[in-house]
Amino acid sequence: MAEFPKGIKNLINAFERLPGIGPKGATRLAFYLLNTPKAYVEDLASCLIKMKTEIKICKSCFSVSEQDICSICQDNRRNKAQICVVERAIDVMAIENMGDYKGVYHVLGGVINPLEHVGPDELKIDELVQRVKIMLTDEKYLNCNLEIILATNPTMEGEATALHIKKRLEGLKIKISRIGSGLPIGADLEYADQATLCRALDGRRDI
Amino acid sequence: MAEFPKGIKNLINAFERLPGIGPKGATRLAFYLLNTPKAYVEDLASCLIKMKTEIKICKSCFSVSEQDICSICQDNRRNKAQICVVERAIDVMAIENMGDYKGVYHVLGGVINPLEHVGPDELKIDELVQRVKIMLTDEKYLNCNLEIILATNPTMEGEATALHIKKRLEGLKIKISRIGSGLPIGADLEYADQATLCRALDGRRDI
Repeated sequence: MAEFPKGIKNLINAFERLPGIGPKGATRLAFYLLNTPKAYVEDLASCLIKMKTEIKICKSCFSVSEQDICSICQDNRRNKAQICVVERAIDVMAIENMGDYKGVYHVLGGVINPLEHVGPDELKIDELVQRVKIMLTDEKYLNCNLEIILATNPTMEGEATALHIKKRLEGLKIKISRIGSGLPIGADLEYADQATLCRALDGRRDI
Repeated sequence: MAEFPKGIKNLINAFERLPGIGPKGATRLAFYLLNTPKAYVEDLASCLIKMKTEIKICKSCFSVSEQDICSICQDNRRNKAQICVVERAIDVMAIENMGDYKGVYHVLGGVINPLEHVGPDELKIDELVQRVKIMLTDEKYLNCNLEIILATNPTMEGEATALHIKKRLEGLKIKISRIGSGLPIGADLEYADQATLCRALDGRRDI
């Protein structure tokens, strides 16, 4: 049985390590690239390297940025007294795409997950507490109502992380809220799972 | 609405051009790579460039190779008098993985597809006819029965290409065959489409 030439085999192996790409998909991608113009493959390779060297982590909110402080934290039109706490930088983009949120963010860098050995110390929770404490002593925010919106995913780990952060912020003069959870728009009661349905009833609102 | 930093946006755009990867998948890949070690991303980038520079096209069968002549064409244990004609190099690997075929290959580089402006001249058909003619005058193959197995895909374009090649090889003292087509192993008559069922009946064999 003949094998793939080494150059192709190495590329397939590299592709296979990406999430959602299996052996068949990786092979397909490698052979597709074999037949594309060299310029595109070089562009892809340089984009990869550039992304890794050019992208920084914002020193204020830990989201992705081109500068030391990201464009959202630098924007004076945003409400700095409203901080939305999310798991990852990609969640920032999801909320931004909505176009409705005018506050700022705080990216934790993950969730508490004992099975994968991720404890609170691995996340930017200390930094969040510190950030809030500094804001509370800052004259600028004297007359503002500080609000922390805990927008970790409504999974077991996300809930646990939200609870942990709530405890850490207890006693501080701020409002802490959790994003709503229940049936997504367009869903059908008939097919909803019990946990979601239970949450939707708990979170019922007056209309 | 904030936008992704340019470095990430460029990488997402580059990923989106790959087959089977949409905007969501491309974004997911880019953010995944943001959190992986720099070494892996550099490895992926160098694999891409190396693949494009190191991989050559075999001068005999037009499959992928590390040298001018691929390992299959160089292998003296293979039956050079049996040539399996396939559309793409990846098809060579599919047949090789089976482990049963002991002949050699000829890669066309595609199929005749008028809708995409691919005519017989864009494929390695002239090269195949030439290859067969040279073999017929070669003393080495005097006592061999030359066989050409047309293994293009059983699609409309693949069938048309196989027919075209058959016509081009007409009159030469060789055996020309087409890979069998019918129900795949494990299939169910109930769910088979009419064209496949029709082909399965046509291709029935004595047992």
